[in-house]
Amino acid sequence: MEAILSSNELAKELEENIISRVKVLSEKGATPKLAIVRVGENPNDISYEKSLLKKGDGYGIDIQQVVLEENISTEELKSEMEKLNVDESVTGIILFRPLPKHIDEELIQETISWKKDVDCMSPLNLAKIFQGDFTSFQPATPFASMKILEYYNIDLTGKTVAIINRSMVLGKPLAMMVLGKNGTPIICHSKTKDLKKILKEADVVVTATGRAKSLKRDSLTEDSIVIDVGVSLDENGKLSGDADFEDLKGYVKGITPRLGGVGKITSTLLMEQLVTAKENSLK
Amino acid sequence: MEAILSSNELAKELEENIISRVKVLSEKGATPKLAIVRVGENPNDISYEKSLLKKGDGYGIDIQQVVLEENISTEELKSEMEKLNVDESVTGIILFRPLPKHIDEELIQETISWKKDVDCMSPLNLAKIFQGDFTSFQPATPFASMKILEYYNIDLTGKTVAIINRSMVLGKPLAMMVLGKNGTPIICHSKTKDLKKILKEADVVVTATGRAKSLKRDSLTEDSIVIDVGVSLDENGKLSGDADFEDLKGYVKGITPRLGGVGKITSTLLMEQLVTAKENSLK
Repeated sequence: MEAILSSNELAKELEENIISRVKVLSEKGATPKLAIVRVGENPNDISYEKSLLKKGDGYGIDIQQVVLEENISTEELKSEMEKLNVDESVTGIILFRPLPKHIDEELIQETISWKKDVDCMSPLNLAKIFQGDFTSFQPATPFASMKILEYYNIDLTGKTVAIINRSMVLGKPLAMMVLGKNGTPIICHSKTKDLKKILKEADVVVTATGRAKSLKRDSLTEDSIVIDVGVSLDENGKLSGDADFEDLKGYVKGITPRLGGVGKITSTLLMEQLVTAKENSLK
Repeated sequence: MEAILSSNELAKELEENIISRVKVLSEKGATPKLAIVRVGENPNDISYEKSLLKKGDGYGIDIQQVVLEENISTEELKSEMEKLNVDESVTGIILFRPLPKHIDEELIQETISWKKDVDCMSPLNLAKIFQGDFTSFQPATPFASMKILEYYNIDLTGKTVAIINRSMVLGKPLAMMVLGKNGTPIICHSKTKDLKKILKEADVVVTATGRAKSLKRDSLTEDSIVIDVGVSLDENGKLSGDADFEDLKGYVKGITPRLGGVGKITSTLLMEQLVTAKENSLK
């Protein structure tokens, strides 16, 4: 196994695959279309939106931007979502969250059609993941973590996977995916005691704490595999992962780099799921 | 802390509480009613049904038995469930599973109104548990395990809880409940390697393997707390828990007995949730 678990080659393979499948669809007049719903002008949302626009352009996927006023009501947003649900030209919908506080986010989550829910926020899709049914949309970040492990032939059967994150965006769905591969998930968080001991004993560590360079040798061994999902600013104001990559790369058995790691393929996998949904709709 | 984590006293408290609340409701003409839906003549179902009838009788709760033919179609069963959904006299519905194989169980799960889903099978309720929202119905067995820990003031904050079971009936929802109490869940199963080591290091072990007396001293320490959810026949054909109780009760820090343990309060908690649902419907 290589020590650096880069996703660069995997990203290329995924992209080539997407582009050729979109070409086939487009020739049938069935180009997939992603609707991006943004409420307000949050800079993070705008930046993510830009990257999706760029990806869509590169892959030949249509994008429909839906930009809504910050002060939109829950009812109005619900009605916008329902329009997209019934619009047959729309294959998938992504709604940026968190939403402004006055909006009933739970109600909006329930509104999105599970068949267009590429970001996996509908309770129907969440319940599927919880039940170990991975036939519908999967949340992109844990899905990307699993894809990298799979790409490097890291079989999780029987292995312990310590996940430092208990969110719906990563930790909880990832634990279900690990169970799906017969691994043993340990869901850790800020209150976990003896964290270093747990991490040292785990076969795989997936970290998403957002604490730059906080994961060091003292929590790992030469047999550790590290999947680093964290992104935050280090003491010099530079973007960094949770892992002290420069120090760890020559020490652990395998580690994802900050660039060309998990983050590189998350939106690609979101797009791939969109393409699959379009293909399935033609069956 | 007592070494034997009996639920006898807790059961009494729960029952007295339920009886007095049902009395208040009945005086208002609002007696809670549980609809029990059974398909076919499975002996396990019939036995569970009998115990619920007896409990309902003891608590003053109305029971409506709905017994359907083994060969009922998915559509017909769906329509029966929908009748109960809209019947205002019905507070909660329990449908025994597994259903006969020709029935689309997923569709039936989606049919039941989440507001009457005392057994927590609706995807809307499952998604709530997955998201750490425990305001709706909770599956009774993991809920009972948590109640016993709470009753004996066992604070899970920071503690590791090894769960030997990955089902939707116990392991997965219990892991979410452990996270809700700031514990660190480890979801173990038949493929987990080094299980003994994991169990020895855990603060709390919850076992539901159905292998009689398989959990012994060699997997535990004097600091272990054991919640035994397993029920199966031992080598003499006697009902037994997963734990070798007689040997362990003088060794570990705390352990639930087979009688007067988790099983004793599961259906009581189901009834308590039914009462709460009726109370909430009057608010």
